[in-house]
Amino acid sequence: MFSRVLRSFLSPEDLTLAETNELLDIALELKRNPLRYDLAGKTLASVYFNPSLRTRTSFDVAMYQLGGATTTLNVGDNTWNLEYRDDVVMDGACAEHIREAARVISRYAQAIAVRAFPKYTEKWEDNRQEPIHKGFVRESSVPIINLESSLHHPCQGLADILTIREKIGKPAKEPIVISWGWHVNPLPMAVTNSVLLEVAKAGMEVRLAHPEGWELDQDIMASARSLATSAGGSVKVYNELDAALPGARAIYFKSWGSIINSGAPDVERGAALAHQRHWQLTLDHMKRMDRGLFMHCLPVRRGVEVMADVLDSPYSAVIDQAENRLHVQKALLLAMLLPPRPDPSSPNYNI
Amino acid sequence: MFSRVLRSFLSPEDLTLAETNELLDIALELKRNPLRYDLAGKTLASVYFNPSLRTRTSFDVAMYQLGGATTTLNVGDNTWNLEYRDDVVMDGACAEHIREAARVISRYAQAIAVRAFPKYTEKWEDNRQEPIHKGFVRESSVPIINLESSLHHPCQGLADILTIREKIGKPAKEPIVISWGWHVNPLPMAVTNSVLLEVAKAGMEVRLAHPEGWELDQDIMASARSLATSAGGSVKVYNELDAALPGARAIYFKSWGSIINSGAPDVERGAALAHQRHWQLTLDHMKRMDRGLFMHCLPVRRGVEVMADVLDSPYSAVIDQAENRLHVQKALLLAMLLPPRPDPSSPNYNI
Amino acid sequence: MFSRVLRSFLSPEDLTLAETNELLDIALELKRNPLRYDLAGKTLASVYFNPSLRTRTSFDVAMYQLGGATTTLNVGDNTWNLEYRDDVVMDGACAEHIREAARVISRYAQAIAVRAFPKYTEKWEDNRQEPIHKGFVRESSVPIINLESSLHHPCQGLADILTIREKIGKPAKEPIVISWGWHVNPLPMAVTNSVLLEVAKAGMEVRLAHPEGWELDQDIMASARSLATSAGGSVKVYNELDAALPGARAIYFKSWGSIINSGAPDVERGAALAHQRHWQLTLDHMKRMDRGLFMHCLPVRRGVEVMADVLDSPYSAVIDQAENRLHVQKALLLAMLLPPRPDPSSPNYNI
Repeated sequence: MFSRVLRSFLSPEDLTLAETNELLDIALELKRNPLRYDLAGKTLASVYFNPSLRTRTSFDVAMYQLGGATTTLNVGDNTWNLEYRDDVVMDGACAEHIREAARVISRYAQAIAVRAFPKYTEKWEDNRQEPIHKGFVRESSVPIINLESSLHHPCQGLADILTIREKIGKPAKEPIVISWGWHVNPLPMAVTNSVLLEVAKAGMEVRLAHPEGWELDQDIMASARSLATSAGGSVKVYNELDAALPGARAIYFKSWGSIINSGAPDVERGAALAHQRHWQLTLDHMKRMDRGLFMHCLPVRRGVEVMADVLDSPYSAVIDQAENRLHVQKALLLAMLLPPRPDPSSPNYNI
Repeated sequence: MFSRVLRSFLSPEDLTLAETNELLDIALELKRNPLRYDLAGKTLASVYFNPSLRTRTSFDVAMYQLGGATTTLNVGDNTWNLEYRDDVVMDGACAEHIREAARVISRYAQAIAVRAFPKYTEKWEDNRQEPIHKGFVRESSVPIINLESSLHHPCQGLADILTIREKIGKPAKEPIVISWGWHVNPLPMAVTNSVLLEVAKAGMEVRLAHPEGWELDQDIMASARSLATSAGGSVKVYNELDAALPGARAIYFKSWGSIINSGAPDVERGAALAHQRHWQLTLDHMKRMDRGLFMHCLPVRRGVEVMADVLDSPYSAVIDQAENRLHVQKALLLAMLLPPRPDPSSPNYNI
Repeated sequence: MFSRVLRSFLSPEDLTLAETNELLDIALELKRNPLRYDLAGKTLASVYFNPSLRTRTSFDVAMYQLGGATTTLNVGDNTWNLEYRDDVVMDGACAEHIREAARVISRYAQAIAVRAFPKYTEKWEDNRQEPIHKGFVRESSVPIINLESSLHHPCQGLADILTIREKIGKPAKEPIVISWGWHVNPLPMAVTNSVLLEVAKAGMEVRLAHPEGWELDQDIMASARSLATSAGGSVKVYNELDAALPGARAIYFKSWGSIINSGAPDVERGAALAHQRHWQLTLDHMKRMDRGLFMHCLPVRRGVEVMADVLDSPYSAVIDQAENRLHVQKALLLAMLLPPRPDPSSPNYNI
């Protein structure tokens, strides 16, 4: 059904703009006609190193609505802890290495989906290597889907760009703000990265707003700028929110932990955060935009990052974003688990 | 299939006596012919704030035997803690509000089932508001099923009245004892309330037995008396078990925590409980009834509330009660998820 | 499909050699043609007292690929702790007795699968009674499958003898080493016991290697010797690994806790273990065998029991063993849940 074999989906960069649009078209068709049987007999093994609400529920439902099934491992809970470092003597807390786990699960399931957040107690340079996801890709003989890694939450990015298409129309040249928000905990930055790359890929005029000290990963920024250039869009950084708002058609508001504080003592992080409490989204911010859409990946802490009245306002697209997770993931599962569409230009096409 | 749209099922009072009987008839038909495909493509999302054995297993099997599927969230475990209070700044342990959670799950699943026990560390006046269940009903766009709340366990009530119909016959005017039992922990009173309302609705002669200080909620008592009056039955309270037994056709034995001790220090509760140890059900009690049926919702602590020889005696209906959970829940799921039966008196009936 | 009714599967001794081979033939047919619908409408209830990776995933997939479904209880987690001792006053940590749990689950599911490891803090004489598994068999009205008990992991044994048939050919008279390995924790010996009985049943020349003090259960040894004698094979014990290797076609390497230290203080166990660290499997050991197959049930701790280069070598059959879990379990589920094949010698066979 999809135009090519998709072996793994770890990042928005695994799909070109044309491929992304092709996938979103399939998602919209599935949104209209949700039930299929293409994946009958096929199982997705979902491996969670961290909790989940939307991801877990939407992937379970996605597989079922396509005729397939899901089996779930919760690492450190219904299964033991898994080691991912190479060449260690495994005399600690981990009873099994992902080298064996990924190979074994590949014999049972037709695809594996993995969620593993970064550890904020460790340096960003270590987290950004994404050893768990890369290990699964290396060891598995079936497709791997990223349910959120240190760098990316690409299914969220797909759902968000679909929501933008539905709510705003053609995204190219449209201004969007992606803003940091204040929070009580240092959150992963995977969603921000994936949304940034998706909207840059779509050629939007991207305004990235965050306090000094909350810069994104440099490679992500380079990728975003490169994608934007290719698509005729732009990426501009702001260190205050107000300057980024005028004329914007949407604001994607999301907290993340500072890279430079990753691995640092809690007390330093707390002091740095205390100065940034004014990065909370209010209705007043929304009114300064141009029919601005409020976007957030959820979960969101009401009254912390975002005021409750923003979430409850007609600006909010958050429930539609969440719903679109289901539709884009179904498209993705079909793209990864069905044979690709024959190429009409191939000499063997009619055979 | 069912005669009307059933939008949520929180309490026995959500169904009239006629509707209850209609549902039980569907349940009996499903007991004879268990496999159907009416719910193909439909998913039930089960949200557990507390553990479960029968409820979890029977709802999973119910959906599967009807052609549907279940996806499960265990709050604070495979998903994060959920806030249910309005207008709080969410800077504590909860990462998401049920306002978002219920709306999002409604986009994935065709019904949501929720279990949330009361917290015995809090005042009964707060627990009885059932903020979690009411929140799900308010925020969800799909039907809500109560898997046990502070006030009710209505699926258990349905299973129990079906068991009474099967074992005793027509329940109207038949005497039944509902008795408190001694226990090491203060248990929820939801089962007692739901069974009380179901048997009152069915017009039984209800004898409610408990020590002074273990009175049920006043609104529940008022509802029970009103239902009983409508159906030609009665509700009478006893403060000792022996007086309630003669001639009774069944005893429903169940412990619950005292309302007046809810929120009080543990030491006070312990002292109050120590005096009530004689409220344990023995074979001797069973023999003083009229071919009395022993009923209990399970789980039961052998040798604590009920002596093992009662559970192992031919008086016991507990396994049949548990089995009937499956059948009544399948009837309920069909009633909630299929379009209602056309009304033959409607002018459009033949169109 | 299978030649007789199989009421429970707790041990390799529940199947004769002929029946084992019959089951393996069905497994091989399912390996070639994995999807069937024979178990449509049937549910397996899986009850885990301990974590799992292969077992959980492979049984979920097995039921799904046969048209059935699985529902899972994780004891002490998504359900409460279960009591298994007879005649105790249940005023402790367990809210329900397996007497009720097994009977109730039997009303919902068509088979029950149970995993319960021994407790190394208790005496072996108590663990070897397998009270949880025996309780489920006694109380349940549906077939019981052992997912690992104190004495056995019979599904693993089946997968392993299938792997031997595939990799070595006819097992009779072929030499195989079953060896203890050093480990940081005292592991269950169930896998060793089941593999020992399976290979003895198949008539292999079995060389059991372990340090003094790590002897297997005497009844297991007696069973192994009896099975070996019947099949023309043998069982010989070695107290050093090197002597067992020459000419062997396979080595099954697996750590287990010492019976005599079960229930003893940790400090004694640690001291005993410290002297046995040389029982680690290296490539050098593999080279001293005859095209030797490396077998292990997984999970394995790299660099602890087995050196990483053994696991990564072409000698290793561990991923194939794990895959075969799926196929043998599907054969087992069909054998337990479908009516047996009619006996051609029966006068009613053609009716």
